[in-house]
Amino acid sequence: MDEKICFATSNFHKFEEVSEIARSYGIMLEHCNIPKIEVQAESLREIVLKSAILTRLYTNKPVLVEDAGLFIKALNGFPGPYSNYVYRTIGINGVLKLLENIDNREACFKSAAALIHENGVIIDEGEVCGYIVRSPRGTMGFGFDPIFTPYGETKTFAEMTTSEKNKYSHRAKAISRVFEKYVELKRTI
Amino acid sequence: MDEKICFATSNFHKFEEVSEIARSYGIMLEHCNIPKIEVQAESLREIVLKSAILTRLYTNKPVLVEDAGLFIKALNGFPGPYSNYVYRTIGINGVLKLLENIDNREACFKSAAALIHENGVIIDEGEVCGYIVRSPRGTMGFGFDPIFTPYGETKTFAEMTTSEKNKYSHRAKAISRVFEKYVELKRTI
Repeated sequence: MDEKICFATSNFHKFEEVSEIARSYGIMLEHCNIPKIEVQAESLREIVLKSAILTRLYTNKPVLVEDAGLFIKALNGFPGPYSNYVYRTIGINGVLKLLENIDNREACFKSAAALIHENGVIIDEGEVCGYIVRSPRGTMGFGFDPIFTPYGETKTFAEMTTSEKNKYSHRAKAISRVFEKYVELKRTI
Repeated sequence: MDEKICFATSNFHKFEEVSEIARSYGIMLEHCNIPKIEVQAESLREIVLKSAILTRLYTNKPVLVEDAGLFIKALNGFPGPYSNYVYRTIGINGVLKLLENIDNREACFKSAAALIHENGVIIDEGEVCGYIVRSPRGTMGFGFDPIFTPYGETKTFAEMTTSEKNKYSHRAKAISRVFEKYVELKRTI
């Protein structure tokens, strides 16, 4: 596919993760040269859809927006869509403190991705469930990766390489689903 | 002033608080009959400015947007602009748990308000500083009001009536500053 998709993110790790997936679909990504306007909403789907619409106003290129969050069951889904802000304020230690004396460590990383192109919008989601460990381990990845272990694993996300993590990852699932539909669509028109 | 200003909020308490202030400036408020699109940003000023611009796209009326948050010093400003979401997930008890064994209880409620009208935008801020009490008191107000006491007071915001609270309130300050400028502007044009 010769047309590049612009990916609205300022997160270098995220750009790398998603580029690796894009390449396997023969898709080339570039940074959008415009600031991403991120909308507040409780559902990741609403956030990415509205953010993609707003970004598309300023470019004619296909626009990809992805948003993710860690939803902790015992905390009513907190930090959810605001995981990035929570990470930068109370951090991993704050989240572990909130879970002190709480036995239910269940949590899911969720991701939603929207791709808005000249023929419409493709939107999909992905999730990976697991549990919050008692203390952080690993130095790879970003955000809450050091305290999350998917079910059936012993490593945290921060102890996995990008390709190991992409096998489980919520983001990889959402993005792959969107790219699959996009490639299919391009084949049929 | 005969022209009504539409106030983009779905919070009944907030509408009441702000209406009381508006009346003292001879200003009438009404609800905007369109959903408020709330933008994510770290600064309240950016949030209200962008949200007001987006709301104004769908109406020709003057639009008022206000956003507030509780900024706790020992938590790097958390919950800040996302106070509403944090209130509905980890709640007052979650915030108190994060502050367990922390002696620095300093916190400020901050508010920013933007009024976008046919001649431009007026934007201003207000804040009230004080401390987070050890356990919640009072049933008035909303959100984190039961755990915040302004300096020089012994009552929490939730133990005060609307007019008592408006004497201290961050929101009352921001809104009054904006209305003052608006009234002045209307007088001179």
